[in-house]
Amino acid sequence: MSRAEALRMFKARIKTETLRELVEVVSTLVSEVKLSISKDGVEVRAVDPSHVAMLVLKLEGGIFEEFTGEPTNIGVDVEKLKDVLRLAKPGENIDLQYDGGKSRLIVKVGKVTRSMSVIDPAGMPEPKVPNVSPPAVAVVAMDEIRQGIRGSESISDHVTIQVEPEVFRLYSEGETDRVDLHLSKGGPGLTRLESKEPVKSMYPLDFFSAMMKSITSADEVTLHVGNEYPLKVEFSMANGKGSGRFLLAPRVEED
Amino acid sequence: MSRAEALRMFKARIKTETLRELVEVVSTLVSEVKLSISKDGVEVRAVDPSHVAMLVLKLEGGIFEEFTGEPTNIGVDVEKLKDVLRLAKPGENIDLQYDGGKSRLIVKVGKVTRSMSVIDPAGMPEPKVPNVSPPAVAVVAMDEIRQGIRGSESISDHVTIQVEPEVFRLYSEGETDRVDLHLSKGGPGLTRLESKEPVKSMYPLDFFSAMMKSITSADEVTLHVGNEYPLKVEFSMANGKGSGRFLLAPRVEED
Amino acid sequence: MSRAEALRMFKARIKTETLRELVEVVSTLVSEVKLSISKDGVEVRAVDPSHVAMLVLKLEGGIFEEFTGEPTNIGVDVEKLKDVLRLAKPGENIDLQYDGGKSRLIVKVGKVTRSMSVIDPAGMPEPKVPNVSPPAVAVVAMDEIRQGIRGSESISDHVTIQVEPEVFRLYSEGETDRVDLHLSKGGPGLTRLESKEPVKSMYPLDFFSAMMKSITSADEVTLHVGNEYPLKVEFSMANGKGSGRFLLAPRVEED
Repeated sequence: MSRAEALRMFKARIKTETLRELVEVVSTLVSEVKLSISKDGVEVRAVDPSHVAMLVLKLEGGIFEEFTGEPTNIGVDVEKLKDVLRLAKPGENIDLQYDGGKSRLIVKVGKVTRSMSVIDPAGMPEPKVPNVSPPAVAVVAMDEIRQGIRGSESISDHVTIQVEPEVFRLYSEGETDRVDLHLSKGGPGLTRLESKEPVKSMYPLDFFSAMMKSITSADEVTLHVGNEYPLKVEFSMANGKGSGRFLLAPRVEED
Repeated sequence: MSRAEALRMFKARIKTETLRELVEVVSTLVSEVKLSISKDGVEVRAVDPSHVAMLVLKLEGGIFEEFTGEPTNIGVDVEKLKDVLRLAKPGENIDLQYDGGKSRLIVKVGKVTRSMSVIDPAGMPEPKVPNVSPPAVAVVAMDEIRQGIRGSESISDHVTIQVEPEVFRLYSEGETDRVDLHLSKGGPGLTRLESKEPVKSMYPLDFFSAMMKSITSADEVTLHVGNEYPLKVEFSMANGKGSGRFLLAPRVEED
Repeated sequence: MSRAEALRMFKARIKTETLRELVEVVSTLVSEVKLSISKDGVEVRAVDPSHVAMLVLKLEGGIFEEFTGEPTNIGVDVEKLKDVLRLAKPGENIDLQYDGGKSRLIVKVGKVTRSMSVIDPAGMPEPKVPNVSPPAVAVVAMDEIRQGIRGSESISDHVTIQVEPEVFRLYSEGETDRVDLHLSKGGPGLTRLESKEPVKSMYPLDFFSAMMKSITSADEVTLHVGNEYPLKVEFSMANGKGSGRFLLAPRVEED
């Protein structure tokens, strides 16, 4: 750890709901996360251990109720943050304080203070975000996506997303049965659909389901889809003060 | 499968609540069920694999919001219907479509379509309903029955129903303890009681409990009871547009 | 059993909520309990099988809606009382009847009667209550205690209570992390604090947590704390018509 890093420290106050959203999204992919914290907000880049999925997340602007200190990278155990969030009563804020180096991260909620060991961020993965630009775009109601996922879960371990010029489809096929979510361009549940030609990819349902269930405050998500191509999911967080992006590798169908 | 059967098909729309009631009741006895569907409604006869209990169920008249097609027998996996019911939002209807023969049953709820393989009804049991006429009759509040069952569950694997000219009793006896539901003729919880002489029979509690818990919309049930004789349970379904009848073999007490 | 005891009997009516509070508190320590019942109320003394914790409980005065009979000691299975409590609907009373000796205890709730075998109280432990007078006293909001316990549960199997002249602390330390509930004299959550010098003791968290969770109607508890000394917890029950007292042995810290 460099001397500069060792001196970095901060004090911040954040709404419980905002931290909870961040933790929910992050915990779908990793159990330890590097948070890049500054007065501008929090940034996260995370890749799951099997390198199937990636998360890029930015909580910006007024995300902290209060902030003093320096830009700081800090590695934390996601489960410990969940422990703390369970202590918060509705409307309570959470105070974070870190004095740099090997000192503990101090998290205060109500009258309870948790001090937790941190992980040296220097040893944590710093994933490069690949340039992924799938050709088709659909903005879909979370509500419908969740129904489609619930249906698919009784059928298969995989889900296929298919975008045609006039139709968005999310389906799973088993040996005998099939579940199909079907949304028409211009109809309810589908705010936007852009696809010059039909594209489709199959994804692992466990990852896709966990990602979608972790998105708790957005009413809709933007799905970028290609042919046997990584999925890009964009969503807003913290009442529009932040945004997240999942990437998910496709499963190549054996023909 | 005969040519006539192969051509049979139908399209129907049914309230989610109605299908849910049917599925709840059926699933207490079987995992696969033959539904006899026509514009008049749905009929079911089912017997559990151990031949301890039987169900006869008739949803009639205006049970379908819409119906076109022919009278059709179709065999379905009860668990798959439960999967679909989990997708329905309050107030949504469920659309069923079947094109006959080996084609899939298409079930549509909201924007999600499930296509499920069917089971050839020709190979499914067609139970004969025995003529069971126990001498005593009691019309009992579901609420009280449920309390009696809950009490019995901490005592024994069996429950005894006893009907006397002035009293209805449901009880379980363990080695040291006993739980007794006691309702008096003319008192609350007992709408009707007809019994010339005291009768009683003991039944397996697991079946009796599952049956009673599956009856969700009726406020009371009619119990026909004899001496070491099958129990007949009659109940209304779908706000009076249907009715069901369970038969349950007694356990003969060893004296 | 003496002739006098054999003749003792009583009939009593008690609010479901009152019996539930008693059973909750008792079941943290024992599975069988001796109840000393008279027209004045119910008294209990119980010690857990490992002799780590003790309970003294007194429900007095108007605790019975009705009572006729003699002072009676009766041994009951706590789980059986819980079974009965599960049958009660909101607002229902519970009727108890015992005819003495080896007769069953008859418990009536709604239309359901449970008759349960009793345990000869002569064979049950009659714990002597030790004279425990820890020097420091804190009256703490249950709400805060529960938060502190929840935080501690993710850290350690033990919890330390520390009382200083101006501060009440409840904390747990793990290898790297620590959770600390901190209440200041005169501040919210701490009604009273009396401590001439700092004292602290460590207690097993499972016992302390179960005790605190069993206290359901009190808003605050009085904690008497010393240095490596038994904890005394006093709390009110049944809307002030009763009171309970837990004693809990400290864990001596190895230095």
